[in-house]
Amino acid sequence: MEAGNNFKQWKKQCLSKLDFSKKGSVDEDIENIVSFINECHNYFTTSSCSGRIILIDGESDNTEVQKQNCSWLFVTHQKCQREDVLAGLRKACGDAVFKFEPFVLHVQCKQLEDAQLLHSVAVNSGFRNSGITVGKKGKIIMAVRSTHCLEVPLSHKGQVLVQEEYIDYVVQVANQKIEENQKRIERFHSCLLAAVGAGEAFGKDRVEETKAEPVYTRRRKRGQEKTDSKNASPVQDDVILQNDDEDSLESGLHLFCLETY
Amino acid sequence: MEAGNNFKQWKKQCLSKLDFSKKGSVDEDIENIVSFINECHNYFTTSSCSGRIILIDGESDNTEVQKQNCSWLFVTHQKCQREDVLAGLRKACGDAVFKFEPFVLHVQCKQLEDAQLLHSVAVNSGFRNSGITVGKKGKIIMAVRSTHCLEVPLSHKGQVLVQEEYIDYVVQVANQKIEENQKRIERFHSCLLAAVGAGEAFGKDRVEETKAEPVYTRRRKRGQEKTDSKNASPVQDDVILQNDDEDSLESGLHLFCLETY
Repeated sequence: MEAGNNFKQWKKQCLSKLDFSKKGSVDEDIENIVSFINECHNYFTTSSCSGRIILIDGESDNTEVQKQNCSWLFVTHQKCQREDVLAGLRKACGDAVFKFEPFVLHVQCKQLEDAQLLHSVAVNSGFRNSGITVGKKGKIIMAVRSTHCLEVPLSHKGQVLVQEEYIDYVVQVANQKIEENQKRIERFHSCLLAAVGAGEAFGKDRVEETKAEPVYTRRRKRGQEKTDSKNASPVQDDVILQNDDEDSLESGLHLFCLETY
Repeated sequence: MEAGNNFKQWKKQCLSKLDFSKKGSVDEDIENIVSFINECHNYFTTSSCSGRIILIDGESDNTEVQKQNCSWLFVTHQKCQREDVLAGLRKACGDAVFKFEPFVLHVQCKQLEDAQLLHSVAVNSGFRNSGITVGKKGKIIMAVRSTHCLEVPLSHKGQVLVQEEYIDYVVQVANQKIEENQKRIERFHSCLLAAVGAGEAFGKDRVEETKAEPVYTRRRKRGQEKTDSKNASPVQDDVILQNDDEDSLESGLHLFCLETY
């Protein structure tokens, strides 16, 4: 099948691209998973996020649920503290929302059977909303997803609506979710390793003796700091591969760059 | 392919089964979509929920994020009022959480191409987290999903943590989400109808002159009222098809029963 023949070419192109995400690198907690997958014959990752707690400031009176004009007040891929949220809220002008978003991973697969195998791994690890997309050009993407979430409005038109004790509590809830999320990631990694023997899908690509470090030649613009800083960025961050049937793989690539091809 | 040959049989079996969901019927807002799909050659629905606003009471000090022991304090598939939430909270003993959950639909498809077509319809309608599952026995499921959500803790160990003004606000936010959800459902329905000419996948099954009404012979147990009532039920309700690779289709079936087979 033409798509199968193209797979190697697609992988080579993808892994040689720059990381266009705002963060510019794979999240630490999933580096091992991403690199493992990219070393396998029949897979490569196209986008990822280990999971995060964020505070975003949206426009008030915006009836569009997809708030396009948001700024990020705070983001972390680890547990957070009350003070992080309070500090963020002090800068809020609109409708601030405190959110937890779970691990997301998009993997392009050589064949449908490869996607099915990876899908089993994802579901068995607790990522029950995972699913496969098959584009018109034959590109097969397996998306690791879960329903695990938290979304808590905290201010409206810049006015904080809750007391600090409530913020304490939602921070605690979000931290529990990050913790559970981490357990699922570890479970996913274990299942992935266990699946290595399951078939040639997980056979490894040749890896050069000198392991390539991620190479990002694209410099950040002056004044644009890492995503975890207070210089916030719009919502569409480093993770969003929209599984559309135009087979677009160019949104938010997190790549572990290999020089094997 | 054997799976393709089995499709007619699977469809017949599925459509003749009882609806085991607590509600016992397809949600009104999506009856037309469900019936349309079930009249098509290459598809049948296995579970659905039009979207809902719920207030659930979970066990406190339960570090398991998936709170297994929850009771439902309130549920609606339409907009809600502040008083609904306040009334529910008065009965809360543990950690009450106010949630919005979007439209979910699971459709078994005859061939992968049929799933791809339906997937395009779903994504174009705004359900961007939709995805396909292909089970070991060849069962192909397309799940319509979105990330659209709201999850707001309101009480901890039975103590309400917020003021009524905040509840007013989150009710307003949830109602906006239900409204947006409804627009997406309508968009999905329109796209579905537009796709009718796209191929034989959407060719219609023969429908008997006398349209079959949903037939549910399984009576509710005494005292067990509809889901929307105050006699709450555990969280696992009428929607949950877990896309696992055991190809289980028996959780939470919502069926529009046809007597065409």
